[in-house]
Amino acid sequence: MGERVSVCEVGPRDGLQIAKSIMPTAAKQRWIAAMAAAGVRTIEVGSFVPPKLIPQMADTAEIVRAAVELPGLTVVALAPNLRGAQNAYAAGAHCIVVPVSVSEGHSRANTNRAPFEQVAEVGRIAAWLREQERRVTLEGACATAFGCSIDGRISTAAVVRLAEGLAEAGADRVALADTVGYGHPAQIREVVRAVRAAVGPKLGKLHLHDTMGLGLANVLAGLEEGIRAFDAALAGLGGCPFAPGAAGNIATEDLVFMLESMGFSTGIDLARLIAARELLHAGLPDEPLRGRVARAGIPKTFCPAA
Amino acid sequence: MGERVSVCEVGPRDGLQIAKSIMPTAAKQRWIAAMAAAGVRTIEVGSFVPPKLIPQMADTAEIVRAAVELPGLTVVALAPNLRGAQNAYAAGAHCIVVPVSVSEGHSRANTNRAPFEQVAEVGRIAAWLREQERRVTLEGACATAFGCSIDGRISTAAVVRLAEGLAEAGADRVALADTVGYGHPAQIREVVRAVRAAVGPKLGKLHLHDTMGLGLANVLAGLEEGIRAFDAALAGLGGCPFAPGAAGNIATEDLVFMLESMGFSTGIDLARLIAARELLHAGLPDEPLRGRVARAGIPKTFCPAA
Repeated sequence: MGERVSVCEVGPRDGLQIAKSIMPTAAKQRWIAAMAAAGVRTIEVGSFVPPKLIPQMADTAEIVRAAVELPGLTVVALAPNLRGAQNAYAAGAHCIVVPVSVSEGHSRANTNRAPFEQVAEVGRIAAWLREQERRVTLEGACATAFGCSIDGRISTAAVVRLAEGLAEAGADRVALADTVGYGHPAQIREVVRAVRAAVGPKLGKLHLHDTMGLGLANVLAGLEEGIRAFDAALAGLGGCPFAPGAAGNIATEDLVFMLESMGFSTGIDLARLIAARELLHAGLPDEPLRGRVARAGIPKTFCPAA
Repeated sequence: MGERVSVCEVGPRDGLQIAKSIMPTAAKQRWIAAMAAAGVRTIEVGSFVPPKLIPQMADTAEIVRAAVELPGLTVVALAPNLRGAQNAYAAGAHCIVVPVSVSEGHSRANTNRAPFEQVAEVGRIAAWLREQERRVTLEGACATAFGCSIDGRISTAAVVRLAEGLAEAGADRVALADTVGYGHPAQIREVVRAVRAAVGPKLGKLHLHDTMGLGLANVLAGLEEGIRAFDAALAGLGGCPFAPGAAGNIATEDLVFMLESMGFSTGIDLARLIAARELLHAGLPDEPLRGRVARAGIPKTFCPAA
C-alpha cells in the first residue's frame, strides 16, 4: 500500500470561475459526481461570492447541497468573508477555504482588504464557526505566496507572517497557493520549510498553477518536503485573470499519473478520472481541455500504487 | 555565480526529424545561429541518416559545416552507425551521439539491430575515431531507458547493462533518454543512481520528453541526483512517432526558466532564446509551437542566476 497523498479537485471552483461561459447546474452535478465516482475524495465545488461578481458561482449553495450527498466525499467551498462562510456552513460544506493574499496588491484586487484585514476576517469566521453545532474545517489559503503579477516578488518572511497570522486567528489549516504560477522548486522548498517551522502541522496543502510549466516539478519539491495534499483541476482548467493566455491549475490527471507512478496512493482510478473530462466538455463545450496524459493516453507501463 | 548546468538544444535534430514539412537549409542556419547568439552553448544540429529515411536531415553535413563556424558553440550530430559517424567527423562535428535502444523492440524499429549489436557498432565507431587526427566526443545514448511504447516497462538492470556495454565499447559519455516520455521522478532517481554506480562520471546528460507533462519534474529529480546536463527543444518541438498527439521534448525556454530561477547558470539569455522562436516559426510555419513561458511571458519576478 503506497503512502497516501490527498488530491483536491478544484476545477468546479477555480476552473469554472474564470471560464467565459457558465456551466449549467445539472452539468456541474454530473461532473462532480463522476469525479467522486472515480475516487476523488475531496472536491472544492464552488465559492460563496456575490453572483454579480462571479455569476459562474451563483448556484454554489445548490451544488454543495447535492455534493454532500455523495458517499465519502469531502466537500470544500471557498468563502471570502464571514457572510460567505455562513452560507457555506448552511449549505453543509465540510471545509471552508478563505483566501488571504500575501501581497497587498492582489489582496486589495481580490477582496478589497489589506492582507491582515482579511486575517481578521478569518478570525471572525473561526469565532462564528466555534459557536455552531457542526464541526467544519477552516482553511486559510495564502494566495500569491510564490509571486504576484501586481506586486512582483514575495518574501518568504511575508508568507510566514501571514501563515502565523492565520494560525493564530483560528484557521485549522494553512494552504500555500501559487496563484499566478510564478513559483519554482527551490522556492517551494524554502517557503514550505519556513512556514512549517512557524505553524507546524497546520501547514496543509499546496495549490499550484502551471503557468510556466513548472507545476509538477513544484509538486515534486513539495512532496520531498513532506507535503501530502495538493489542489489540481481536471484538464488543467482555470487560468489567471492577470496573465492572459496563461495555463491554469495543474491537471489532476497528470498529477495523479505522477503520484501513482511514484508509488503514492491517491485512491483515484486514472482511466475513470480521464473519462470525466467528457462531462466537463459537455457542460462547458467552448473551454479548451488541457492535460498531457489524457492526450497521449495512459502508457502501457503505468502501474498505479496499490 | 550559480552552478553551471549545460542545456543542449536538440530541436534541429529531434524536433525537425518528425516535423511534417522540411525546414529549408538557410532557415535552419538562421535559427541555429539565433540560439547560439542567445547563449546556447551546445546544439544537436542534425543526424547523419539516409535521406530516404529522414529527408528532413538531408542537409546535415552542410548544417554542421556552418554551425562549427559559430564562436563557442559545441556542435553535436547524431549518427546511427559507423558510416554516419564518419560523415559527422568529416563535416566537423565536435560530438557524435549514437542512439542505442535498451528495448529490443525499439532497437529493431529504430536501427534494425538488437541492442548489443548496436553496442558493437559503437565499438567500431570508437575504434575508428581513435585513429583520426581530430578529437571528437563519442556519446552513447540509451534510448527507451525509462519505458518503451513497444516493449513496455524497462528494468533498471537492463539500462545498467547497456550503459556498461557502451562505456566498455569506448563511449566517452553515456546519456539516458526517455524517448517516449514514460518516466517519472522516482524512476529517474533510481536509474541515474544505478547507472552512475556502474559507469561513474561517464554518465552525462538526460534526454527527457514531456509526453505526460512530467518533463520538468523529471529534470528536477535528475538535478537532485547530480545531473548537470539536459537536452531540450525550443518550443517543445518534436514528439514520438509511436505516440500520436503526444507532446515532444521538454521546451528549452521552460527548462532555462526553471534552472535560472533555481539559481543554476545556463549562460542563456531567456528573452533572446524566446525571440528565436520566430525563426523556428518562419522556417516551419505549420508546426505548432509549445512552451509555457513564451506563452505567458517572462514574469516580472524572474531573476536569472548570475
